[in-house]
Amino acid sequence: MKTTSKRKVLHYSSNEMTEIEDAVAEEFPLTIYLNDVEFATLVCSPEHLEEMVIGFLASEGVIRRFDDIEKMNMDERGGFCHIHLADHVSTDHFNYSKRIIGSCCGKSRQFYFQNDADTAKISMSKIALTPIQCIQLIEKMQQSSTVFKETGGIHNASIGTAEELIVHRGDIGRHNALDKLYGYCLKNHITVRDKVLVFSGRISSEVLTKSAKIGVGIVLSKSAPTNLAIKMADDLNITTVGFIRGNSFNIYSHSWRIEKDSDH
Amino acid sequence: MKTTSKRKVLHYSSNEMTEIEDAVAEEFPLTIYLNDVEFATLVCSPEHLEEMVIGFLASEGVIRRFDDIEKMNMDERGGFCHIHLADHVSTDHFNYSKRIIGSCCGKSRQFYFQNDADTAKISMSKIALTPIQCIQLIEKMQQSSTVFKETGGIHNASIGTAEELIVHRGDIGRHNALDKLYGYCLKNHITVRDKVLVFSGRISSEVLTKSAKIGVGIVLSKSAPTNLAIKMADDLNITTVGFIRGNSFNIYSHSWRIEKDSDH
Repeated sequence: MKTTSKRKVLHYSSNEMTEIEDAVAEEFPLTIYLNDVEFATLVCSPEHLEEMVIGFLASEGVIRRFDDIEKMNMDERGGFCHIHLADHVSTDHFNYSKRIIGSCCGKSRQFYFQNDADTAKISMSKIALTPIQCIQLIEKMQQSSTVFKETGGIHNASIGTAEELIVHRGDIGRHNALDKLYGYCLKNHITVRDKVLVFSGRISSEVLTKSAKIGVGIVLSKSAPTNLAIKMADDLNITTVGFIRGNSFNIYSHSWRIEKDSDH
Repeated sequence: MKTTSKRKVLHYSSNEMTEIEDAVAEEFPLTIYLNDVEFATLVCSPEHLEEMVIGFLASEGVIRRFDDIEKMNMDERGGFCHIHLADHVSTDHFNYSKRIIGSCCGKSRQFYFQNDADTAKISMSKIALTPIQCIQLIEKMQQSSTVFKETGGIHNASIGTAEELIVHRGDIGRHNALDKLYGYCLKNHITVRDKVLVFSGRISSEVLTKSAKIGVGIVLSKSAPTNLAIKMADDLNITTVGFIRGNSFNIYSHSWRIEKDSDH
C-alpha cells in the first residue's frame, strides 16, 4: 500500500493562491483480532504491517517470540489482521476490552507506567559508541527517511550496530515505528542486546519503555528525553543520548557507554 | 507543579565533554476516578490539570458541559483526580476497562475512528480569515510557547478569533494540549464555533476529530495534515491550513473560509 498520496491543495505565497499537487501522509486503521476476538486498532502508515503486528503483540506481552503466532491472516483491503496464537500461549490475561491506538503515539498499553517499569528488564548490554559514531548513526537514519522529506511528520526509527544501521522503519505513529523494528527483529531472529536504537523523536517514558522491551542498551535521538524517561533509563541501565544535532549532543543517562574518540 | 526540571547532563561539542545544566520536560501521570471507579490515566505536562480533565471527559463523551461535574477533587501530590458526576449524567456507557493514555499522543479513545466521524458535528462556523491573519496567528502562538523554547518537544495549541489568541496551552501530549483548551472553554462558557484552533503539530485524524468536538471551524498548523484528516475535514466542513511557514501555507480543505487580503 502507499504511505503517501498526492492531493491538490491551494498554495499561498507572495499574496498569490495557486493550485499545486502535494504529497500527504496516509493514516491507515488496522484492527487486530486475536483468536477471533477484537483486540486493538492501530492507526498507522500502511507498510510493514505484519512486522508491526508482531512487534505490537510482543510489546503488549501477548507473545514472546515469533513462533507464538500460529497463523496470521492480513487483509489489507479490509484493514483487518486475524491472529491465531499457538496452543502453548496462555490467553488468560487477554480479557481487556477492545483498544484503539491512535496514529500519533502509543497508548492504552496495559502495564504502562509502574508495571512496565517493574517488568521491563534491566539492560545487560555492553555495547559502547564513540561520539562520532553517535553523530554518524543519526545522519544515516536521516538519509534513510525518504517519506519524511516528502510529507513531513513521519517518525523515523532504526536499529543498528555501532557502525551501521540494520533496519529502518518510518510511521506517522512513533510507537508503530518502534513496533515495526521490534517485529522485524523477532521475525528474523536478530539479537538486539548489543544494538542501538536511533530515533527521530522525543524520548518519552513510553519510547524508553518500549526500547527496554525491545532490548537495546543505547537510545540515540535528535530530540530531547523527558525527565520521567531519564529516570526510567537510569533504573533500567539504558544510555540515552539526545539533541544530536550537527557535531554536538547531550548524554542523559549511563554515559559510560559513550567513549571518547580514540583518534583525537 | 513545574513542567520542566533542571538536570545535570553531559554535553559533547568540539570533541569535549562538559557537564552542563539542562531543562527537561516533566511527564506526569494523572489517574482519573469517575464516581470512585478508575477511568483513565493521562500522562501529561503537570499544569492546567483541571481543565485537562474537563476537556478529556467532554471529548470522551462523558460530560457535555461543565456543570455535569458535581465535584472534582484534584490530588496533585498523589497524581489522582476524583470526579463525581451530577445525578442527571448517565453512566451506562462507562463500563469500559481502565485505560492509559500516554504522553505523546492520544488514544484508546472509544468511538475513535468510524464512530467519531459519525458523531462529530458538521461545522456551521462562518468565520473567515485573511492569509495574513493565518500567518499572524501562528506567529502569536509561537510567541506564547516559552516551554518549547526551553526544552523542545512540547506541543502548543491556542484558540483565537481572527485577530487574537484567547488562550494558549502546551503539553508533551498533543491531545492533552487540546483537552486543556477544550476544558478552558467549557469552564469559562466560551463559544467556540466562530473561533480558530492554532496548533504546532501535525493534523492527524485524531487532532481533526478533537477539533470537531471542540467545535472550531478552522484549524491552522505549522505542520502537515494526514490524508485521513483531510477527508474528515472535507466531511465535517472544517477548513485545514497547514505548513504555515514564513509567508506561505497550504489550504487542504474548505478554502472558502480563507479570503484574499483586501488591502492588496
